[in-house]
Amino acid sequence: MDVPRFNRSAVDGYAVKAEETIGATQFKPKIFQLTGNNRIDISRAKQVWTGNPLPEGVDAVVMLEDTKLVKDKIDVWSQVTPGENVSKRGEDIQRGDVAVEVGTRLKPQHLGLIAASGISKVTVFDKPRIAVLATGNELAELGNKLEENQIFDINKLVLCALCSDLGAEPTDLGIARDDIDEISERLRVGLEESDVVMTTGGTSVGGSDFVPDAVNKVGKPGVVVHGVAMRPAMPTALAVASGKPILILPGNPVAAIIGFEVFARPLICRLLGMKHVEPRPTVQAKMTRGIATALGRRNFVRVRVFKHDGGLLAEPISARGSSMMSTMTKANGYVIVPENREGLEEGELISVQLFDIVEG
Amino acid sequence: MDVPRFNRSAVDGYAVKAEETIGATQFKPKIFQLTGNNRIDISRAKQVWTGNPLPEGVDAVVMLEDTKLVKDKIDVWSQVTPGENVSKRGEDIQRGDVAVEVGTRLKPQHLGLIAASGISKVTVFDKPRIAVLATGNELAELGNKLEENQIFDINKLVLCALCSDLGAEPTDLGIARDDIDEISERLRVGLEESDVVMTTGGTSVGGSDFVPDAVNKVGKPGVVVHGVAMRPAMPTALAVASGKPILILPGNPVAAIIGFEVFARPLICRLLGMKHVEPRPTVQAKMTRGIATALGRRNFVRVRVFKHDGGLLAEPISARGSSMMSTMTKANGYVIVPENREGLEEGELISVQLFDIVEG
Repeated sequence: MDVPRFNRSAVDGYAVKAEETIGATQFKPKIFQLTGNNRIDISRAKQVWTGNPLPEGVDAVVMLEDTKLVKDKIDVWSQVTPGENVSKRGEDIQRGDVAVEVGTRLKPQHLGLIAASGISKVTVFDKPRIAVLATGNELAELGNKLEENQIFDINKLVLCALCSDLGAEPTDLGIARDDIDEISERLRVGLEESDVVMTTGGTSVGGSDFVPDAVNKVGKPGVVVHGVAMRPAMPTALAVASGKPILILPGNPVAAIIGFEVFARPLICRLLGMKHVEPRPTVQAKMTRGIATALGRRNFVRVRVFKHDGGLLAEPISARGSSMMSTMTKANGYVIVPENREGLEEGELISVQLFDIVEG
Repeated sequence: MDVPRFNRSAVDGYAVKAEETIGATQFKPKIFQLTGNNRIDISRAKQVWTGNPLPEGVDAVVMLEDTKLVKDKIDVWSQVTPGENVSKRGEDIQRGDVAVEVGTRLKPQHLGLIAASGISKVTVFDKPRIAVLATGNELAELGNKLEENQIFDINKLVLCALCSDLGAEPTDLGIARDDIDEISERLRVGLEESDVVMTTGGTSVGGSDFVPDAVNKVGKPGVVVHGVAMRPAMPTALAVASGKPILILPGNPVAAIIGFEVFARPLICRLLGMKHVEPRPTVQAKMTRGIATALGRRNFVRVRVFKHDGGLLAEPISARGSSMMSTMTKANGYVIVPENREGLEEGELISVQLFDIVEG
């Protein structure tokens, strides 16, 4: 329907014919006779509250504070133009207009516009169900006691939280030992119950390939990509089985997060029915110092963006290994160094994709 | 605890003493004897997978791809430095370090770091409960049939969604007629069940003040601020009753959203226990055209930020009234024009607070 459905007053005041207010000032007010009628004659005005339909015969509203009530008349102190303080029928949305395009994530303002049109139900895409499996003999579930040489699995927790943040529905497939049969068994469960399966660990270039081997056992075509020219997350593999995508992410937590960012994020946006991959908020910042990166690989460099002198600086958070989770909490974003560059220079202006707030 | 708890290999490869690899190249490899011992002697190496504890007597790991296995020996093609490919004990977090500061919103990366430390439970602040009441004779609940001159209430829906997005727990107090007794009755319910009450409508400067009057009836001190030098949302009022804050927002949807942004957002962040008010992502953009704003009021101007020629432009979304919800879906952010300015100039570089994504 048209929103508004009728011409409405946008303020508390008096509905008048605009041309009758020409020249009105506080020293030389125009005088109007008040009426309760819905059809307004010459030199007449009607009191209206915000949202009231505009009576017939008028085209503007004088704000209450620009008037003075004297018995059954008002002094108008200020002139108005036709349409002033009036919300015109269909001004917000016209019947037949597209209020919100298909493929838009519904934020509060979209819900508001849809509701204003009187639409109380909309069809949305199902939330994609993502099953997350961790693999590795060294892993223990959080809350348990660590055996010697064990570490707590954190990847499931982090990947599930990243899925939820994007609007997907994660499920936890637990931890599988480095055993092809055990891994394939879990993969089958995941493929049956979910739209996507995501794994961590058990993939490396030249090393232990329990997960790719297990995936290949589970269905065709199996692994289609193994090893990506990026850093971190180089051992990432992409697979399909039972017609469903399987993301095989590295076991190192930071690599798993970057692999998620590069491959899972677009996939989830697509499954959510979004028109485009939802970009992270991006800011321009200047590098506080230069860094070296590997030629031939796309490097995802963690940086901490902060305010300085009215501009933004990006401090690289250095770390040798991709297992250092603390670099992801010290950093609030990452910059992509393309494969044809050997690093970034001090003072270089770069685009940072933010995954946390910029303080200060 | 220390994370990692022990020196670990960061890659798949062979644990060696770094100084024994000096000068190793593919043409002149260094040769190591493989061993299964946990104490490594001279010219010995032990195979390790990512995450394995480093044996005694070694200080680095040669990556698998930089070696060649020949029977029970390996050729090492590349020299490593002490500590290379090793995650040192406590490198990520040291026992006693603060992993995440109090007052931080827990994002996936924070959960990861906390979990890595073996902490499976953390104390968090209660989600603030926010009761949202709409007021106005003209309002109908979405899903009902509109009577003549009625419009659908959209404010409750939008404000509840904004509360949820921030991590608060909204409840819907329904619609109250423009009646002081009816409004106070609902306010009492809200104050009893929630930490904050938020209302829309029934507040204006000089006009109908049903809500401020009802609030003053409900408790002391009642309304403490009524009318704010801003646009939109000028009729906003701030009150306290039963020791709880009451935000009295205007009925115009856009004004209600801006009022929420300015007053409810900091309040909710505070109640969530956050150190700082969580800023919206902010970008710098150039105005595509100049705009005029009212001197003496802080103006919140909706703009659409878009990419252009490698930079960002901000197109003002013009609208006379603050009731036009569509301006909030056409815009993706707002710029604040301070009260001592009469507008913004074409080409001026401004800071935009984003409430939606920047496409393109």
